[in-house]
Amino acid sequence: MNEEQLKEMLDEFRLGKLDLQTVINRIKNLPYEDIGYAKVDNHRELRNGFPEVIFCQGKTNEQIKGIAEKMTENGSNILATKAGNNVFEFLKQSILHCEYYPEAKIIFVKNHDVVAGKNKILVVTGGTSDIPVAEEAAVTAEKFGNTVERLFDVGVAGIHRLFNNRQKLYEASVIIVVAGMEGALPSVIGGLVDKPVIAVPTSVGYGTNFGGLTALFTMLNSCSSGIGVVNIDNGFGAGYLAATILKQIEKN
Amino acid sequence: MNEEQLKEMLDEFRLGKLDLQTVINRIKNLPYEDIGYAKVDNHRELRNGFPEVIFCQGKTNEQIKGIAEKMTENGSNILATKAGNNVFEFLKQSILHCEYYPEAKIIFVKNHDVVAGKNKILVVTGGTSDIPVAEEAAVTAEKFGNTVERLFDVGVAGIHRLFNNRQKLYEASVIIVVAGMEGALPSVIGGLVDKPVIAVPTSVGYGTNFGGLTALFTMLNSCSSGIGVVNIDNGFGAGYLAATILKQIEKN
Amino acid sequence: MNEEQLKEMLDEFRLGKLDLQTVINRIKNLPYEDIGYAKVDNHRELRNGFPEVIFCQGKTNEQIKGIAEKMTENGSNILATKAGNNVFEFLKQSILHCEYYPEAKIIFVKNHDVVAGKNKILVVTGGTSDIPVAEEAAVTAEKFGNTVERLFDVGVAGIHRLFNNRQKLYEASVIIVVAGMEGALPSVIGGLVDKPVIAVPTSVGYGTNFGGLTALFTMLNSCSSGIGVVNIDNGFGAGYLAATILKQIEKN
Amino acid sequence: MNEEQLKEMLDEFRLGKLDLQTVINRIKNLPYEDIGYAKVDNHRELRNGFPEVIFCQGKTNEQIKGIAEKMTENGSNILATKAGNNVFEFLKQSILHCEYYPEAKIIFVKNHDVVAGKNKILVVTGGTSDIPVAEEAAVTAEKFGNTVERLFDVGVAGIHRLFNNRQKLYEASVIIVVAGMEGALPSVIGGLVDKPVIAVPTSVGYGTNFGGLTALFTMLNSCSSGIGVVNIDNGFGAGYLAATILKQIEKN
Amino acid sequence: MNEEQLKEMLDEFRLGKLDLQTVINRIKNLPYEDIGYAKVDNHRELRNGFPEVIFCQGKTNEQIKGIAEKMTENGSNILATKAGNNVFEFLKQSILHCEYYPEAKIIFVKNHDVVAGKNKILVVTGGTSDIPVAEEAAVTAEKFGNTVERLFDVGVAGIHRLFNNRQKLYEASVIIVVAGMEGALPSVIGGLVDKPVIAVPTSVGYGTNFGGLTALFTMLNSCSSGIGVVNIDNGFGAGYLAATILKQIEKN
Amino acid sequence: MNEEQLKEMLDEFRLGKLDLQTVINRIKNLPYEDIGYAKVDNHRELRNGFPEVIFCQGKTNEQIKGIAEKMTENGSNILATKAGNNVFEFLKQSILHCEYYPEAKIIFVKNHDVVAGKNKILVVTGGTSDIPVAEEAAVTAEKFGNTVERLFDVGVAGIHRLFNNRQKLYEASVIIVVAGMEGALPSVIGGLVDKPVIAVPTSVGYGTNFGGLTALFTMLNSCSSGIGVVNIDNGFGAGYLAATILKQIEKN
Amino acid sequence: MNEEQLKEMLDEFRLGKLDLQTVINRIKNLPYEDIGYAKVDNHRELRNGFPEVIFCQGKTNEQIKGIAEKMTENGSNILATKAGNNVFEFLKQSILHCEYYPEAKIIFVKNHDVVAGKNKILVVTGGTSDIPVAEEAAVTAEKFGNTVERLFDVGVAGIHRLFNNRQKLYEASVIIVVAGMEGALPSVIGGLVDKPVIAVPTSVGYGTNFGGLTALFTMLNSCSSGIGVVNIDNGFGAGYLAATILKQIEKN
Amino acid sequence: MNEEQLKEMLDEFRLGKLDLQTVINRIKNLPYEDIGYAKVDNHRELRNGFPEVIFCQGKTNEQIKGIAEKMTENGSNILATKAGNNVFEFLKQSILHCEYYPEAKIIFVKNHDVVAGKNKILVVTGGTSDIPVAEEAAVTAEKFGNTVERLFDVGVAGIHRLFNNRQKLYEASVIIVVAGMEGALPSVIGGLVDKPVIAVPTSVGYGTNFGGLTALFTMLNSCSSGIGVVNIDNGFGAGYLAATILKQIEKN
Repeated sequence: MNEEQLKEMLDEFRLGKLDLQTVINRIKNLPYEDIGYAKVDNHRELRNGFPEVIFCQGKTNEQIKGIAEKMTENGSNILATKAGNNVFEFLKQSILHCEYYPEAKIIFVKNHDVVAGKNKILVVTGGTSDIPVAEEAAVTAEKFGNTVERLFDVGVAGIHRLFNNRQKLYEASVIIVVAGMEGALPSVIGGLVDKPVIAVPTSVGYGTNFGGLTALFTMLNSCSSGIGVVNIDNGFGAGYLAATILKQIEKN
Repeated sequence: MNEEQLKEMLDEFRLGKLDLQTVINRIKNLPYEDIGYAKVDNHRELRNGFPEVIFCQGKTNEQIKGIAEKMTENGSNILATKAGNNVFEFLKQSILHCEYYPEAKIIFVKNHDVVAGKNKILVVTGGTSDIPVAEEAAVTAEKFGNTVERLFDVGVAGIHRLFNNRQKLYEASVIIVVAGMEGALPSVIGGLVDKPVIAVPTSVGYGTNFGGLTALFTMLNSCSSGIGVVNIDNGFGAGYLAATILKQIEKN
Repeated sequence: MNEEQLKEMLDEFRLGKLDLQTVINRIKNLPYEDIGYAKVDNHRELRNGFPEVIFCQGKTNEQIKGIAEKMTENGSNILATKAGNNVFEFLKQSILHCEYYPEAKIIFVKNHDVVAGKNKILVVTGGTSDIPVAEEAAVTAEKFGNTVERLFDVGVAGIHRLFNNRQKLYEASVIIVVAGMEGALPSVIGGLVDKPVIAVPTSVGYGTNFGGLTALFTMLNSCSSGIGVVNIDNGFGAGYLAATILKQIEKN
Repeated sequence: MNEEQLKEMLDEFRLGKLDLQTVINRIKNLPYEDIGYAKVDNHRELRNGFPEVIFCQGKTNEQIKGIAEKMTENGSNILATKAGNNVFEFLKQSILHCEYYPEAKIIFVKNHDVVAGKNKILVVTGGTSDIPVAEEAAVTAEKFGNTVERLFDVGVAGIHRLFNNRQKLYEASVIIVVAGMEGALPSVIGGLVDKPVIAVPTSVGYGTNFGGLTALFTMLNSCSSGIGVVNIDNGFGAGYLAATILKQIEKN
Repeated sequence: MNEEQLKEMLDEFRLGKLDLQTVINRIKNLPYEDIGYAKVDNHRELRNGFPEVIFCQGKTNEQIKGIAEKMTENGSNILATKAGNNVFEFLKQSILHCEYYPEAKIIFVKNHDVVAGKNKILVVTGGTSDIPVAEEAAVTAEKFGNTVERLFDVGVAGIHRLFNNRQKLYEASVIIVVAGMEGALPSVIGGLVDKPVIAVPTSVGYGTNFGGLTALFTMLNSCSSGIGVVNIDNGFGAGYLAATILKQIEKN
Repeated sequence: MNEEQLKEMLDEFRLGKLDLQTVINRIKNLPYEDIGYAKVDNHRELRNGFPEVIFCQGKTNEQIKGIAEKMTENGSNILATKAGNNVFEFLKQSILHCEYYPEAKIIFVKNHDVVAGKNKILVVTGGTSDIPVAEEAAVTAEKFGNTVERLFDVGVAGIHRLFNNRQKLYEASVIIVVAGMEGALPSVIGGLVDKPVIAVPTSVGYGTNFGGLTALFTMLNSCSSGIGVVNIDNGFGAGYLAATILKQIEKN
Repeated sequence: MNEEQLKEMLDEFRLGKLDLQTVINRIKNLPYEDIGYAKVDNHRELRNGFPEVIFCQGKTNEQIKGIAEKMTENGSNILATKAGNNVFEFLKQSILHCEYYPEAKIIFVKNHDVVAGKNKILVVTGGTSDIPVAEEAAVTAEKFGNTVERLFDVGVAGIHRLFNNRQKLYEASVIIVVAGMEGALPSVIGGLVDKPVIAVPTSVGYGTNFGGLTALFTMLNSCSSGIGVVNIDNGFGAGYLAATILKQIEKN
Repeated sequence: MNEEQLKEMLDEFRLGKLDLQTVINRIKNLPYEDIGYAKVDNHRELRNGFPEVIFCQGKTNEQIKGIAEKMTENGSNILATKAGNNVFEFLKQSILHCEYYPEAKIIFVKNHDVVAGKNKILVVTGGTSDIPVAEEAAVTAEKFGNTVERLFDVGVAGIHRLFNNRQKLYEASVIIVVAGMEGALPSVIGGLVDKPVIAVPTSVGYGTNFGGLTALFTMLNSCSSGIGVVNIDNGFGAGYLAATILKQIEKN
């Protein structure tokens, strides 16, 4: 029930077309649907630059297409994550304005322009193998309306590479740090700045890297403060979190 | 070596009092000290409201006092975390302006006023047992110059308590969610807003709560996006991260 | 806002004392409170025998007393779990009708009689050390209005003890099986009956019992079907689950 | 030895065809076979709607066929779980009345009609990827003689979807909740009802979902009461447990 | 029902004092009690030297005394394990013939003599800290009627100590190897002999010894064959297993 | 240096062909080689029926063939474990008397007859999926010169199947129990007999069976005594351990 | 900025071509680049025999080729690890002096001769399956300019094999011990020598070897002292660590 | 049998006082004792500065005293680790030349002077809480005859502190890095030098530091090469390993 229908019902009640108990019963049934209202409000905000998102892993091509078609009806941009090339080949047959970012494994359906804010998100990686996860974060942040700078392969084993690029650390509003193996890079960066750092552990490594768990725990135990951690290989989550921060900044 | 001394050296060199090789050698020794410079720059920023921090756990009263005295020399505010009441009793004998927050286990040494920004941080807990960790986050954020609102005991087992207070969710710029046991609250809140959510797992619970690990993993695997997670019981880390986000917002 | 107040508001609206927009705004604010309504409905059902519950672990005596006093106002029975003897000594000073079950560590505040249904819950243990957890389950189930039978110390190391008592297995509607160490008893019982079995792993044992984890995983991997498992040492949860099943049975 | 043979032996004994010691020896050998008797009694009950079950995983097609043929001799219905399509293709060549449920991976051999009871089991999922496990639970419950309602994709990230369907929660006698990732849905549902909730963690997710362990532990640590948990992806176990509860209800 | 009562019943049946159906019903109720019979048979064997056992951990002094008094009635020897000195002080007040082995934490109640067999069990430890667990194994084996030899502190860090005593390895029928830390000793011994080796991991060590788990897994993964492993610190279990092997040997 | 060469050296020394220091030096170099001597003694014993063993996993066909040819030179029987059919096809081209046991994945090279002792090893499984591991144990024990009886598919979910076959438990000298999923069968059997039980956890199961770890820990925590456990799926190790026990029995 | 450019700048400053502030600004930007300088100094040392290293896992052939070409420009030797044969086939088309070590999975690009020092590194393995990891260590150490001796298949199950070769233990300066399964070999060797032992756990084994974790923890808990451990299967790391030790020895 | 006794025996043999077979038998019994010989050789080397070691944890004061007295007989220095102050108070009553290092928890019995070599071991810590473990390493290394330099509290959260002291990194022959929490310091140091780095994880931290496991795994997964890791909190092991490296250096 939307606001229009609510007005209508109250008018009918005032006019005696509906009795008191009926109105009370209907109102008692509102609560949960009204949460839907609130959600729609959110969506209104989100559409100011935030695309709809489809998590492709574990969905069939047909399912993805179905969801995408429904989303595209109301003119939203769409971000489809963890999407292999074959998903893209399938989707572009029926969905217009499809773009594919193979390293990020992201399909972007551009139904309207994205205007990037002036504040910057910096995406840093420890090694070259961390780049796919970093690209997922970067492309996500960009498609959510942000300016993104990349700084790749500056891990702690050769820490001068990071220091040579320290200016970039100082210019960003939020820093996403993507690292596998021992995952020590967020600690070092967190010690150099006093701005939000989002740490993304990756499954890069072998033996006791435990598929990314070691990097994850390193990041959670950082002796530097101000670090928020997301799930292993969750580039999208980091990009999204950074975007929500930037949105708060720019709203101001 | 500060900028003044650098100038002096270069003047001496121009005047021939120092030979080329000596100057080159000195410059080659600068780098690491210069990181110190940069750090001092950070500190200059930090002193605009950010106190110095002492992590008390594992330090003797004498050590804490020593560090606090040194910090207090240059007029900084000091935040001492994980500080038992006995630390406070000891410290207040020699350090002026000591305040103690027993639930947060925080000692605050107030050497200058803290002016709170207009944007709000909301600190939410699932249960009453999560309050000490939440207070650590809240007091940290307050002493770092922020307005903090508390919303305690609104866990998922009685989810109407959360919905009754949804207005608070909409008014905050950043939401810190503190929860033990199954740690599901950040997922629910993350699904209701599109702003940064900082999730703090607590060690509250028993059996397969694994001292907070279950809550931690619940938060990392959240099907809601935009959630950054900190270490178990790390209220300070959450408060600090929220403060850095607010600082970026207010800087704008 | 309760139903009375809702009526009042609608009457005022019909009489023109409140304008349309005000009423719409108030209704838009109802939803979450209305979940409270629904909850109250639940409570109405619950009061037909189901007591209010306080989980004492991690709460101070004062907090427990405060909650109990509030609950006792509307005549509810109260079940306080994981309550040491000192909690009982404190509570009985100000709360009437307090009874203490030391082995179950349960305080029961009896504000009205509990009438037990005719269907039976059987509580079984593998060893004598599992009895405290079993008693927590049994007393919970009894205070929620059920007939409970106990069958203790019939573990698989001497399986004839169980078979000598098989009649009790056949007479119960629900069987709660409490076992530590290797936790194999639910598998054996689950193979003998075709009724709901609730398995409670206990932390009894040493070495690779991992504080109850081994028993827990044994129960989850049972080759017998129809076994629902609760957290380690969670006697209350088992008793509560059994009570909800019995309630469905008796409602019929 | 069945009851007929027992009678015969006692008659022969009375007629002096068997001496006392022989009869005693035979009786001393009965016990374990008699457990067989008891089991047969169970089976008699079970046949009132409960099919025989074959767990296909790790069995060859030939083995499954052999077991199914033996079971079909006495007119039982058969439920074969974790059965790929190739098992079905093989089985239907020689076994009559085979039906295949591909999403549930269940083959049902219908040797007699199944009459569904009037009480309802509700099967809920958090996401679309959890549906195969939910279908295994639902089809199992149906073939064991129950009415099943499905409510899919109502996870906590968009909790209004659940609330919009709350009526279904109120109408069911038992609720099976299937969820992967952080597995928080049973906690929310458990807080809204006071009836048995069976929670099924799924292996859906990545990184620190640990193949379903995170969801499992979330469910075991739920701050809502009355939740029984089964093994990861064990839809059959949940359906079976629900069926035993319904059987107790309907027996009444 | 014992054999005498069975005879009686059959006689009454033959004499027509009991009708057929009554006899059949009684027989159908025998099975589980008969397992008791079989168990009694076992006990008869066991009394040829095997004492009754009480696991004291988690039992009150009163409970232990109660069980011991009942066991002592039929003249059994009693072995009470994991018994602190205070248990002994309490027990010896009312139970005769109590002996205490403080290092093994075993109380032995000697109601009849134990005659040791001629075959030998060798109990070996890696270090001196493993001796309490080794003594639990050794005293258990002795009280179950075996000759035990001890060889302590011959761990792999100084492997010549083992080789200097190799003759003892060759003379034993079963070797119990007790080791903490890395637990490598069973592998070395298993490579030197072709007789049963029972490996007991102990919780001795620190850091990544994980309370004995590391030693346990070392033993399970031994590249030497013929090693059976028991739970961490389970000296009793090793002694008992060795005793059952020796019993088979001497029965021959 | 063998005994002959030792004699020769001493003779040369007595005859003055070797000086004292040379002899002393050579003797000081003996120790480690002498352990080789001792080993050869073991081998002499082992050849009384015990075959040589090749663990095929991780070895190439060529490597296995090379080792087998060398072993066959001195007339030993050979047992090659974890050997796929392709290994057998390769080996039988050049090695005579090859037999393949596909379920056990064992190749046996029979260079001389194996005479089975009169004592029996019983190999029991919980389910049909455990049979390959059980066969590895059984074939190993047989080829090491023992009489083996099999009792398969008698798991705790239908415990009457075990009791119907209890006579076999009483007739064996050693019982090997192979079980996956919750691994409870050794506990039940251990409670029925007082003879050595060797428990073999298998990786059969899914979800929280953790590839056999749950069964392993169940077995280590058994409340029945006298159970020695081997590594997951280590049928060979169980068969070998049983063989060493039988050898001690028959030696007597 | 290198030293030459620094001189130039200072000369220009002395000559008045650059003003004071410009020079100060440039110097303030040096620090991090200067860490590069220091690194270059390291590199100068490293080129005395130490090749550049490429970790191939997770890099494309094109990426590896690009890096190798850049490294080869300044005449360095190159060691490419975890390189499959297909990488070698690709690389040798454009890079001269390529050699491939298939067992070690190492490609060596020899742009100048490697002169081996006189001190020895001994590489030992427990079994034959550990050889690939051992070869990675050995080839790494050789290409870093060291003399390497190999001693393979001397595990603790037949410890005389190790003792027969003890002379090699005494002749080496550093011993690398590579072992899977229970990983006990470093403990035994560490007890025989008082020189640095580098332990490399391998993933060889099954069941509770946990992909090498069991061997790793065995090594970390060794009761022998003087053992440094590297990651599972990290032959390269062990070879590199040994090389740094040898370099310190030979520098002396 | 020592060399003197060996000579005597051979002389008697030459003189005909002992027959050939007797001598052969005695020699065949030598080997294992001879390992003792070899070990004594090692000890001879070790006494050139290396003290005897007692690991006090888990030993009684009387036991420690007994061992120390025996060691002191042959003039060795003694290092007693993990020794509380009460051990020292007890020991100094009867053992001369006792010194106590309370932070390192080491008792040193100085029976002869220790001469420190000229090469340096640097001991670095991340934080102040890591100092006790670092002192255990440092005092161990010193008492084994080495020059030790300390560099404490230079963790990655303020990395300029490390760089300000980089000269110390360049002057050492071996670097011991002691770090808790996320344990990232060895990675950074390993990237700055090409000399042996020994990493010691400490149990400092909370939550997901897992008592030091997180730091341990960080160190094992370091993207810097040349790092050998010891057990959690094992300062002694690191000091000992460093001492063996220095011994090889100085022997050259």
